[in-house]
Amino acid sequence: MAKPIEFLFDFSSPYGYLAAHRIDAIGQKHNREVKWRPFLLGAMFQINGQRPLKEQVLKWDYSSHDIERTARRYGIEWELPEVFPIPTHAAGRAFYWINEQDEELAKQFALLVYQRYFTQGLDIRSKNIIGELAMELGLGTDACLRAIDSDIYKEKLKTVTSKAIERKVCGSPFIFVGNEPFWGHDRLDMVDEWLQTDGW
Amino acid sequence: MAKPIEFLFDFSSPYGYLAAHRIDAIGQKHNREVKWRPFLLGAMFQINGQRPLKEQVLKWDYSSHDIERTARRYGIEWELPEVFPIPTHAAGRAFYWINEQDEELAKQFALLVYQRYFTQGLDIRSKNIIGELAMELGLGTDACLRAIDSDIYKEKLKTVTSKAIERKVCGSPFIFVGNEPFWGHDRLDMVDEWLQTDGW
Repeated sequence: MAKPIEFLFDFSSPYGYLAAHRIDAIGQKHNREVKWRPFLLGAMFQINGQRPLKEQVLKWDYSSHDIERTARRYGIEWELPEVFPIPTHAAGRAFYWINEQDEELAKQFALLVYQRYFTQGLDIRSKNIIGELAMELGLGTDACLRAIDSDIYKEKLKTVTSKAIERKVCGSPFIFVGNEPFWGHDRLDMVDEWLQTDGW
Repeated sequence: MAKPIEFLFDFSSPYGYLAAHRIDAIGQKHNREVKWRPFLLGAMFQINGQRPLKEQVLKWDYSSHDIERTARRYGIEWELPEVFPIPTHAAGRAFYWINEQDEELAKQFALLVYQRYFTQGLDIRSKNIIGELAMELGLGTDACLRAIDSDIYKEKLKTVTSKAIERKVCGSPFIFVGNEPFWGHDRLDMVDEWLQTDGW
């Protein structure tokens, strides 16, 4: 079977949120598994001296309009949270804890976190809120909180982020088809075409 | 008749170069005139404290790969010039001089400048080289050189750039359908869809 598609994203990334609604359908169309891999975009920006999109005034004016327009195009609910962007350690660690148990459930969890943040502005920085979202999916809140504070999942999230930097991931979402890199929600059609044609 | 599409670009912009090969076909498909408007991205970056793509290491690694892949996808010849990016005052002023005489000829000139720069690395900063390219299209070299040095076309290029900044243009290429802004070669399919559906 062909290698899985890798879908890297940060939980505070609007275009990651949009892509999370579409990436699995692209995988299914081409009979490819999609591995979801949250990472820490903030850590990456610090290392590379980049600034968050929202601090780049002209770009943000345009991008906030583009995000809303793109969400409308795909029928995805969208509302910019008051606090944005935010650090996403708790969500990322909880994801990997769930992912070890059940990859499909971890995707459901990721979509739930994304939706609550980008449609209701829920403060997903909070460990307790992440624990409650895990509970909504039938998982134990206490076990989730322990996972968030455990060295195992701290390390896991750090390692994924370091490896992403090594592979020159420069934003979120970032998709790998084999070693072929695609950056941005706006490359999903190209990912689809790349899979269809086996590259060009 | 529907308002023209506005196509803003800098002569030193790889994605502008790619879009220049496709934008008029999109206009024709929807029976819309396309107005080409070179501007000075460098001046805009200075005002906004942005850095050229090439100086943003991680982004450039990815983007140089993406540009080549996109050019291949659309069958457009591409080679990164040794000197890149460059100031594009001479080409911009010559464009507006030609544009006053013949808008179609100005587009041919723009494509010629783009091709010689992005396939052969010709130094299009040089007024004399711009004059020679004008000559290839049957225009007078001396008249072109006078236009490049004239206050009229200096002002024209400055004015287009200032107005672009006022309209929050944040990169090249940048397309307006009425007041709807689209940034990047990767928004051309969206422009097409927007024209098809009259927006959403």
